[in-house]
Amino acid sequence: MHVVSSVADVRRIRRELAGSWGLVPTMGFLHAGHLALVERAAAENDHVGVSIFVNPTQFGPAEDLTAYPRDIGRDLELLREAGADLVWTPPVDEVYPPGYQTYVAVEEVTKPLEGAARPTHFRGVATVVAKLFNVFQPDRAYFGQKDAQQVVVIRQMARDLDFPIEIVVCPIVREPDGLAMSSRNIYLTPEQRAAAPALYRALCAARDAWRSGEHDAGRLRQIMAGILAAETLAEVEYVSAADPITLVELEDAAAGALLSLAVRIGRARLIDNVLVGW
Amino acid sequence: MHVVSSVADVRRIRRELAGSWGLVPTMGFLHAGHLALVERAAAENDHVGVSIFVNPTQFGPAEDLTAYPRDIGRDLELLREAGADLVWTPPVDEVYPPGYQTYVAVEEVTKPLEGAARPTHFRGVATVVAKLFNVFQPDRAYFGQKDAQQVVVIRQMARDLDFPIEIVVCPIVREPDGLAMSSRNIYLTPEQRAAAPALYRALCAARDAWRSGEHDAGRLRQIMAGILAAETLAEVEYVSAADPITLVELEDAAAGALLSLAVRIGRARLIDNVLVGW
Repeated sequence: MHVVSSVADVRRIRRELAGSWGLVPTMGFLHAGHLALVERAAAENDHVGVSIFVNPTQFGPAEDLTAYPRDIGRDLELLREAGADLVWTPPVDEVYPPGYQTYVAVEEVTKPLEGAARPTHFRGVATVVAKLFNVFQPDRAYFGQKDAQQVVVIRQMARDLDFPIEIVVCPIVREPDGLAMSSRNIYLTPEQRAAAPALYRALCAARDAWRSGEHDAGRLRQIMAGILAAETLAEVEYVSAADPITLVELEDAAAGALLSLAVRIGRARLIDNVLVGW
Repeated sequence: MHVVSSVADVRRIRRELAGSWGLVPTMGFLHAGHLALVERAAAENDHVGVSIFVNPTQFGPAEDLTAYPRDIGRDLELLREAGADLVWTPPVDEVYPPGYQTYVAVEEVTKPLEGAARPTHFRGVATVVAKLFNVFQPDRAYFGQKDAQQVVVIRQMARDLDFPIEIVVCPIVREPDGLAMSSRNIYLTPEQRAAAPALYRALCAARDAWRSGEHDAGRLRQIMAGILAAETLAEVEYVSAADPITLVELEDAAAGALLSLAVRIGRARLIDNVLVGW
């Protein structure tokens, strides 16, 4: 497994290893969700590239950029076992050199949900992913369904800018009690951690209601809000039942509708989602 | 020479013809300046792709999008003679399908000069060029020095977004009296056409002064403005002596400084430039 920090080294190794390439972009502090992406990429491609980069342009000024957890030694061990061939761990000024000034903006689908709470977040995500696409030139790129709006934004960007890359989305990996795996779960105290499965419970309750015939999207949002309200440590940012392509809030939830929510528990901001009828 | 309209056809032909590719993006109504780009691309690459697309996102609401001259039959004849292998002439909705919403914005270098007069112009240019880069995946892309700020913007974008493409800039091709070739020259009446060489005369006077030792940039701007003021049909938009990378106006013009100007003559908006000491 090659571990490099410069763009030039990524390009050189990319050229030397012929065949198809899968890319897994990450911010490090890897968990089983990331490793599932790497294993899927290894199964579907001749070679797998992984980036580990805590991308400053996707953090707001009051967000957790400096606190974001890091453990590069452990990450590299896990990536070796999972089958990565090339890991790029650039310093910030290799990605954003002095004078950097170009940004990729996706408009409509970045406005609601996470975008409403984090107004410059997806501009940073789309920009760094466009750069990763150009640095690695992969055949396929792998993203987790956990960041559902990120998936929508990246699919839209890849389609709009004609990137010749297949976007592959992998299912959420959960703890035994249902909590979606996230690097930010480490922020939770034991008491907060015990409260966190309320997110998935709320989603499952709404999905169960949908399966029982409740397709009124407002009612599904009420069901999620009701379950979260019973958890005193949870401060709800949004509950949503939206179109999975446009992210517009629905009145009637057809199969494929995206149920999602964002909740603060202590200093952690947690998100989760399910697609109904899938 | 293949002439196609869909992205899928460009990609298919791009794959079928092995070897290096040069790309020449154009808005059609080709003149000798465009053909010099195609010939240079043909000399430096195994294959040459050309796009002909009057890109609506780079025109402002009060600009000449619908009036922009078009002659696709003549363009194709000229491209065949010049050595193009593949010409892409997409309809607007192949480039911007319904729901399109992604834009590439280059920030600092798009603010002065053309960007001050045309605030959304370079966002449209950067976006369509990023798309062309992804559709054609060329090894090299060719642009004319006539659109000097466009060259600066595209170089900045290609560097910032890590496009693995060499940006090649070709000299301005001029009429015998010095007027820079431009598709928009057709807007000029005979009387206006006779006035138009004032642009190049102004640039040459400033360049001659620089060669004689006048490196005060304010004085060089005065020299250009003075010559243009003597031409009653010319309405000056700007005269500039700027850093060729950042486009910041200079106080002292070192070798490589970019002298540029924009002038309205009748309904034509003409631009031209020279680099001093090159």
